[in-house]
Amino acid sequence: MQGLGIKARQAGTEISRADTGRKNLALLKIAEALDSRRDMLVAENAKDLDAGRANGLDAASLDRLTLSPKAIQTMIDGLQQVAALPDPVGEISGLNYRPSGIQVGQMRVPLGVIGIIYESRPNVTVDAAALCLKAGNACILRGGSESIHSNRAIAACIADGLAAAGLPGAAVQVVETTDREAVGELITMDRYVDVIVPRGGKSLIERISKQATIPVIKHLDGICHVYIDDSADIDKAVRIAVNAKTHRYGVCNAMETLLVAESIAGQVLPVLAEEYRQKGVELRGCPKTCSLLPSANRATEEDWGTEYLAPILSIKIVAGLDEAISHINRYGSQHTDAIVTENYTLARRFLREVDSSSVMVNASTRFADGFEYGLGAEIGISTDKLHARGPVGLTGLTTLKFIVLGDGHIRQ
Amino acid sequence: MQGLGIKARQAGTEISRADTGRKNLALLKIAEALDSRRDMLVAENAKDLDAGRANGLDAASLDRLTLSPKAIQTMIDGLQQVAALPDPVGEISGLNYRPSGIQVGQMRVPLGVIGIIYESRPNVTVDAAALCLKAGNACILRGGSESIHSNRAIAACIADGLAAAGLPGAAVQVVETTDREAVGELITMDRYVDVIVPRGGKSLIERISKQATIPVIKHLDGICHVYIDDSADIDKAVRIAVNAKTHRYGVCNAMETLLVAESIAGQVLPVLAEEYRQKGVELRGCPKTCSLLPSANRATEEDWGTEYLAPILSIKIVAGLDEAISHINRYGSQHTDAIVTENYTLARRFLREVDSSSVMVNASTRFADGFEYGLGAEIGISTDKLHARGPVGLTGLTTLKFIVLGDGHIRQ
Repeated sequence: MQGLGIKARQAGTEISRADTGRKNLALLKIAEALDSRRDMLVAENAKDLDAGRANGLDAASLDRLTLSPKAIQTMIDGLQQVAALPDPVGEISGLNYRPSGIQVGQMRVPLGVIGIIYESRPNVTVDAAALCLKAGNACILRGGSESIHSNRAIAACIADGLAAAGLPGAAVQVVETTDREAVGELITMDRYVDVIVPRGGKSLIERISKQATIPVIKHLDGICHVYIDDSADIDKAVRIAVNAKTHRYGVCNAMETLLVAESIAGQVLPVLAEEYRQKGVELRGCPKTCSLLPSANRATEEDWGTEYLAPILSIKIVAGLDEAISHINRYGSQHTDAIVTENYTLARRFLREVDSSSVMVNASTRFADGFEYGLGAEIGISTDKLHARGPVGLTGLTTLKFIVLGDGHIRQ
Repeated sequence: MQGLGIKARQAGTEISRADTGRKNLALLKIAEALDSRRDMLVAENAKDLDAGRANGLDAASLDRLTLSPKAIQTMIDGLQQVAALPDPVGEISGLNYRPSGIQVGQMRVPLGVIGIIYESRPNVTVDAAALCLKAGNACILRGGSESIHSNRAIAACIADGLAAAGLPGAAVQVVETTDREAVGELITMDRYVDVIVPRGGKSLIERISKQATIPVIKHLDGICHVYIDDSADIDKAVRIAVNAKTHRYGVCNAMETLLVAESIAGQVLPVLAEEYRQKGVELRGCPKTCSLLPSANRATEEDWGTEYLAPILSIKIVAGLDEAISHINRYGSQHTDAIVTENYTLARRFLREVDSSSVMVNASTRFADGFEYGLGAEIGISTDKLHARGPVGLTGLTTLKFIVLGDGHIRQ
């Protein structure tokens, strides 16, 4: 692992200076390599799938592990999309003259070397490499051990693309060992790695954050709320509350708790309950909710702090905005929370006072996503406050340095 | 300490929502309280000074500990300056319509609760409190134990100012115990503290970073370089190299190593050597430097990585830009590095390729400073890459959340 670190550091310096055209060429050449070696990718992936089946991987895991023709095409499209994004590196902002006569501004620069630890999802190997490369960073990728053959095959394509563009192969290194100790080493190599991005379950991320001696961009849970205010438009409220819960269940930006203002609950909840019944969503409500909706089970204290990632929804009737905000700040995970309201003043307060990475008015929490936000692609969604918060795109993989231009200026 | 943490968290929520006028009023009221209680401040400070003298504190430490009339006035002026700065909180940027119809932008928001650990410099108590308050954060301040009476007196003035503005007193809490274990507790209270800013010597900061379970905004050493390129203007080169080394010795943005292109060394080094001789600066050179300057001692390998903070300068003659950049990237501390050149292409390369928090062309490294950069004030200079890099002003004490505005929009 130390050897990978040393090589990554050297490659990071080279890639940080590579011009935009060369980085884009590498991305397109990697896409070409994937395109021309589809059979090899499928064959290598089959080895992982066979082993996965033999080891009793569940259907969802096997699905994520599969490099179907469509999945390969999505990786190729992704590379082309990242190539088409503007290069964030070198952008100079705020360059202004100061009273002393110097000009001071900031230049966007790569972070250096990024370590990414993820589950057995081979497509992440390409997505993560593409974003790191475009942002001028070297990366060390450590995917789940069940995807080792697929990752090696993808790594070969990446190496070909880098070579074709004249960039160092060590700019993207895939850890080829399935040894678990490799992760422990990766997250403590502070001399060679500048930031760790873990992707996966909450327990994995918590363990990595605890053990890492390198800064970690974390993505913990998404306990997202929609609050239907008493001045909400009922149609919008129903549309948003249905979409936020049922568009997809297993995603971090799905709504887990619905808060409803008391004076509008009688109008909106029965309509919603019927929608949820049709979709097979189990409802768990506060006592007031249960008296309004005979179909709802009683929610326990634990429900308010649970990320179901399933067709289950907890519902609480609140007095108004203040109770909604304090519930969100107490039980939420600072991920994504939305208000449905036509009231200007309450919308303005909700936006300012809810301390979450995404705060929304009259929109579904499902929009919390790098593509939807126009970041082009995302390496994850950060629930941290420092550095990057919310969906992390190319900009989140860079930092700013100050630049000073003078003409022989000295400090008085 | 846990009690302080709980109170800080509550106060942080209140202060994050306080409007600009109220925060500015608090700053001005704190200034008034300091102004009207100068005698009390001097009397309490005298207790610390007496104890310090009895305990054999050195002259420099006693100097930093002293609340002279001028030091008190500087604190008052600082509060008024911070009140006059624009409020960073709530600023919305990049709010654009997306193809889906939603508007997406970012809002600048406070970090939450900031823990600041610093040496026995009572003026830092006011400076740090003012910046945290203006940026909408609660703070817990832990100054050196030698300044305990001074800090308590200042804390009383801060409490008065907060009360006069109707803000919670717990928005600024000064740790009143001199117990060393309090620091260990403060840096591991991740439930209540969002970020730690240590100010002080390198060993203190390294220890805190190692033990903290909370993100730390670090300021380690400043091994700053000036590189005199062969196309430098000799007058500018001499002016900058003299200022960068001799303007002040004990500061992190002073030059510690001078790099000179071989072809210009014979012209510039003898002139510089005479200037340094007059100022009493000891020179330690590479072999080529020593053969050019009989007054120079031989530099050892250790010299290139040493932050002298003293009238000592190491000098190395290099072949050109490439060797200068690799020397800086190898031995420097990524703090502040400058090139002196009239060559456009080399200036452009130096700006992009030197990986330091401040990179300068034809200006003295001494400009690396929050006031000089127009940040208004600084809480420190970060040598980290993530979140805040270089001088950290109000913006560095905030973060960005995404805001989404819709009109009943749902994800398709």
